[in-house]
Amino acid sequence: MAPVKVFGPAMSTNVARVLVCLEEVGAEYEVVNIDFQAKEHKSPEHLARNPFGQIPAFQDGDVVLFESRAISKYVLRKFKSPKADLLREGNLKEAAMVDVWTEVEAHQYNPALSPVVYECLINPAMRGIPTDQVVVEESLEKLRKVLEVYEARLAKHAYLAGDFLSFADLNHFPYTFYFMATPHASLFDSYPHVKAWWERLMARPSMKKLGATMAPKP
Amino acid sequence: MAPVKVFGPAMSTNVARVLVCLEEVGAEYEVVNIDFQAKEHKSPEHLARNPFGQIPAFQDGDVVLFESRAISKYVLRKFKSPKADLLREGNLKEAAMVDVWTEVEAHQYNPALSPVVYECLINPAMRGIPTDQVVVEESLEKLRKVLEVYEARLAKHAYLAGDFLSFADLNHFPYTFYFMATPHASLFDSYPHVKAWWERLMARPSMKKLGATMAPKP
Ligand SMILES: N[C@@H](CCC(=O)N[C@@H](CS)C(=O)NCC(=O)O)C(=O)O
Ligand SMILES: N[C@@H](CCC(=O)N[C@@H](CS)C(=O)NCC(=O)O)C(=O)O
Repeated sequence: MAPVKVFGPAMSTNVARVLVCLEEVGAEYEVVNIDFQAKEHKSPEHLARNPFGQIPAFQDGDVVLFESRAISKYVLRKFKSPKADLLREGNLKEAAMVDVWTEVEAHQYNPALSPVVYECLINPAMRGIPTDQVVVEESLEKLRKVLEVYEARLAKHAYLAGDFLSFADLNHFPYTFYFMATPHASLFDSYPHVKAWWERLMARPSMKKLGATMAPKP
Repeated sequence: MAPVKVFGPAMSTNVARVLVCLEEVGAEYEVVNIDFQAKEHKSPEHLARNPFGQIPAFQDGDVVLFESRAISKYVLRKFKSPKADLLREGNLKEAAMVDVWTEVEAHQYNPALSPVVYECLINPAMRGIPTDQVVVEESLEKLRKVLEVYEARLAKHAYLAGDFLSFADLNHFPYTFYFMATPHASLFDSYPHVKAWWERLMARPSMKKLGATMAPKP
């Protein structure tokens, strides 16, 4: 079986979301860099992969996909094994809890946390735009409310969907990884179960390996 | 089998997202109103259903869920039939295309279209806040780019995930329905395949029925 291809720089958050899934299921893959400086993401070749001209894109033979969460699900379904069943689609109730907390990442957690990553890391370091402290403060305020809900959930279960690792957890990896490199990382100290969950995730070989290739190092 | 319960006013967009799925699979359901004026969505009873204090929430026996897209998937899985297989999880490739265009709704379409609905309908009519024309213009500009991608896709296939109706299409119902009641509805006229797709959806009994109960009437 030829390795699947992931298009985009491995250090990009939405690319790393896919890579962590590939690592967890032990699939062979190749990362094909897309040169943003050269506007390669807006080239006809790349637009054929992703009509929105974004990364990541993905190829597995004649299957060409985009949207990081959709690619991730494909990977987890295709390379599912008894050791790595991270969507639990065979169990109606477990699959539902995986979906609930996967949607929570997209609609509650990420909208609160990712602006801090953009303002404190990506804008100043990669785009020459200074940090907007108002955005940071507003986002931290939202994030505290979200983390309170996570704290209550993770006080009852080892992982978000229940007492099993799932896509819902993996999905939190890239943005949280970079958040931990911002001056606001210590926010997590106030939520001991969330902090312990994050440390449990970061101890996994998949996340250790990817974290080592993702700049800036925390 | 006792009917499943959906908590929240039926005319709310994220509630209607779930209801259209229930209608499509022919499941019995009961809508339990949550009184926003009385802050019932922040009551302990409701917070036990949805810790973020939002609607919709959902109950099917001992399964209690929130996040409209997660609830919808549960409904489509549980009540799946040969006539209504709207996630296609048995087919790796089809399921992937359903996921891609479901994620596109959440991350490309809705962020461009929903602000127009908020600014032109919800804010002035329900919150006494006047329309912010700058937000409307910026959103319409983004929406045009998104609709160009949809036009190319729907010129090749009858539905978003391919030549079969899926959750990816249903998922577009509530916000698009309200968009069609704004002064900007005619934007869709410039995208004939998108317009035809929307009319095909609106001709479905599920959407006709729900549309009739959703104010404002277009
Ligand atoms: N919802 C998309 C977001 C992808 C995305 O925003 N990619 C960024 C880089 S992290 C990008 O390609 N930006 C370039 C652009 O939008 O033109 C996903 O999850 O894949
Ligand atoms: N991502 C959530 C969004 C739900 C949502 O925003 N619900 C709104 C009404 S449409 C709400 O309950 N707002 C009250 C609040 O956030 O306090 C979903 O899809 O279910």
